[in-house]
Amino acid sequence: MRWAVLLAGGSGTRFWPLSTPQTPKQLLPLSGAGSTAEEAVERLTGLIPRERVLVVAGDGLAPRLRKLLKLPAENFLIEPRAASTGPALFWATWEARRRDPDAEVLSLHADWAVGDAAAFRRTADAALATARTHDRLVTVGIVPSRPETGYGYIVPGAPLDATARTVARFSEKPDAATALDLMAAGALWNSGLFAWTAQRFLAEVARHTPEVASALPQLESGDVEGYFRAVTPISIDVGVLERSGAVAVVTGSFAWDDVGTWQALARVRPKDPSGNVLVGPGIVLDSHDCIVWADHDPIVLCGVQDLVVVHANGRILVMPTQRAAAMKQLLDALPPEIRDIKP
Amino acid sequence: MRWAVLLAGGSGTRFWPLSTPQTPKQLLPLSGAGSTAEEAVERLTGLIPRERVLVVAGDGLAPRLRKLLKLPAENFLIEPRAASTGPALFWATWEARRRDPDAEVLSLHADWAVGDAAAFRRTADAALATARTHDRLVTVGIVPSRPETGYGYIVPGAPLDATARTVARFSEKPDAATALDLMAAGALWNSGLFAWTAQRFLAEVARHTPEVASALPQLESGDVEGYFRAVTPISIDVGVLERSGAVAVVTGSFAWDDVGTWQALARVRPKDPSGNVLVGPGIVLDSHDCIVWADHDPIVLCGVQDLVVVHANGRILVMPTQRAAAMKQLLDALPPEIRDIKP
Repeated sequence: MRWAVLLAGGSGTRFWPLSTPQTPKQLLPLSGAGSTAEEAVERLTGLIPRERVLVVAGDGLAPRLRKLLKLPAENFLIEPRAASTGPALFWATWEARRRDPDAEVLSLHADWAVGDAAAFRRTADAALATARTHDRLVTVGIVPSRPETGYGYIVPGAPLDATARTVARFSEKPDAATALDLMAAGALWNSGLFAWTAQRFLAEVARHTPEVASALPQLESGDVEGYFRAVTPISIDVGVLERSGAVAVVTGSFAWDDVGTWQALARVRPKDPSGNVLVGPGIVLDSHDCIVWADHDPIVLCGVQDLVVVHANGRILVMPTQRAAAMKQLLDALPPEIRDIKP
Repeated sequence: MRWAVLLAGGSGTRFWPLSTPQTPKQLLPLSGAGSTAEEAVERLTGLIPRERVLVVAGDGLAPRLRKLLKLPAENFLIEPRAASTGPALFWATWEARRRDPDAEVLSLHADWAVGDAAAFRRTADAALATARTHDRLVTVGIVPSRPETGYGYIVPGAPLDATARTVARFSEKPDAATALDLMAAGALWNSGLFAWTAQRFLAEVARHTPEVASALPQLESGDVEGYFRAVTPISIDVGVLERSGAVAVVTGSFAWDDVGTWQALARVRPKDPSGNVLVGPGIVLDSHDCIVWADHDPIVLCGVQDLVVVHANGRILVMPTQRAAAMKQLLDALPPEIRDIKP
C-alpha cells in the first residue's frame, strides 16, 4: 500500500517575527488560508488516506501538529533530536514497512506551496508507479522558473519510459552562473518529493549509507533514542540519492515553492497591480513590490518600494525584500530581548 | 505685569498615527521627555509666573491641558470654535488687560522645540522690554538654518536700538528660490513669539483689524460664544502685524523648531552616527537617516534609508521622510476605519 511521510521539522527563523521555534513556517498560513502542513495533508486526498500519512517532527511541534493535522496519534514519529532528512526518512520508511511489508512511500515536506493539487497528485502517482515498475528511488524534478541559487538541481539522464528518466547527476545550491547553465541544459529543481518502495529504499541505505544503516539494530529493538544517538546526521540527497545507482527522475508539472523567505510570498500569494502582497489589515499607497504582513494593527505603506514590512508576535520588521534571504545574519545581529519571542 | 498667552490649539494630523484629535502634537513628548506644551510653560520659569500664564485651546483639549499644565483653572480660555490666531490673541490680550490694566503680553505656541531655554528667556525679556520702550508690537525673528518654505519670514528694517529693528516687510511661505534669497538678505523666520503691551495691541487691532475688533462688544459683555460667532477667522500676521506700522523685530538667539512633521524629529532629537532617530524600543541596523517611533512593540529596521516608521495607537506607518510634509494628502487617501483613531 501507499504511505506518505511528511517531514514537518524546521527551526522557525526564516519568517521572523511571524515564525518562531514554537510556530515555524510549516504551521503558518503563508500561502493560503491554512498552514502549509495542513495543505500538504489535504493535497494527498484521493492519493493516500490519512491513516497512512506518517509525520516526522521534533518534540516541540508535536502537540500543535497533532491538533492541526487530525491524524492517528500513532502516525506521529517524534524525533528526540534533529538529524537531517536521511535518518528521518530511514526511520519513517522502516516504520511503514513494519506496518505494511509491501509499503510504497511518498516523501514530502510540510512547508511547500503547490500551485495545482491535482497535477501534484498525478505526478506523485506517476512517481510511485515508477518506483514500483523500475525498482528505483524516484525524485520529482520541477521545471525551474528562475535561476534559484538556494535549491538543488537534478540533471536528467536517459529515458526509462515515457515519464521517467535516470539521473545523470545532482548539483546542490549552484552559483548564479551555474544555475543559469543548469536551467539552459534542462536541469530540474530537486523538490524533495520522492517515491520509493520501502524494500528498495532500505536496501539502498544498507548498501550506501553507513551513517544511518549502522543504527538499524536500535530501531529494530524499538530504541528510538538510541537510534538517534547512533546515527550521523546526513541529508537524504547526500547520504542516499547521490550515492545510489538506482535513482530516477519524474518531471513535476505543477508550480512548487518551498516558501523559503519573506520574498517567496510574492510568488505564492495574490499581488495587487503594483506587485504588492498585503496579508492582514492595512493599505499600500503609491508603492510597488512590497510584502506586508499585519497580524493585528493596520499597516499603512506610502511611497515606498521593494520592502518587507511585518508586524507579528509583538515585533515590527522593515527591510528590503532582497535582504529576506539573509534572515539568519539579521537575527544574529539582534539583541536577544528583541529576537527571542516568548510563546 | 507680564503675562504669557500660550496658544495650544491644533488638529492632530501631522504626526499621525501618534497624534490624534484628542492628543495633538503639543501634548506629545516629541522633542523630549515631556510634551512640548509642558516644556513651553516650564521654559517661562523665572520670566513669567504660572498664575499669569493664559492658555487658549479648544474644548476638546482643555481637560488634558488642565491636568498636564497645572495652571489655575481660570487661566484656560476655551475657544468654542477655532478662528485662527487673530481672534485668539485679541481675546487673550483683552482678558490679560481685564485682570491687569498695565499688562504686557508674551505670545507663544505650545508645540515648539526650543534649544536653549535661557536664551529663549533672554530674548523674550528683550522683546517685552522693546514692546514697552518703543510702544510697538514686537516679533521675535529666528536666524534661519535652512531655506524652509513652510515658514513665514521677516525682513528687518532700520535699527530702533541695540537689540530691535523695524520690520521692512513680511514674506509668508516663500518658494524655495525666494527662501534662499530671503536667507541671503538676512531675513528671519517669523516664529510666532510676540510681545506687546495689551494697550498697544488692542489699539492696533481697533485701528487695523475690523474682522476682530467689530466683535469687541460681545467680549465686553462676557459673551465669548457671541464673540467667536462674530469674528472672521484671520491670522495675527495677516490681520494685525502686516497692517500695523508699529511693529518691531528682535532677533532670537536660540534654536527653534515648530516640529511640524515627522521629519522634524531629526532636528530636535538625538541621532545615532548614521543619522537615525529611534524613540522607543527597537534597533536600526545598516540603515541611515531614518526616523523610528515605537510606542510598545520593538521595531527592527535593516538595510533601509530615509524612512519614517511609526507604530502608535494601533497603526503602523512606513513612508519616505520626504513624504512627511504631505501628511494631509496621505490621510485623505486612507479609509476612515484605518485613519480614524478612537480615543
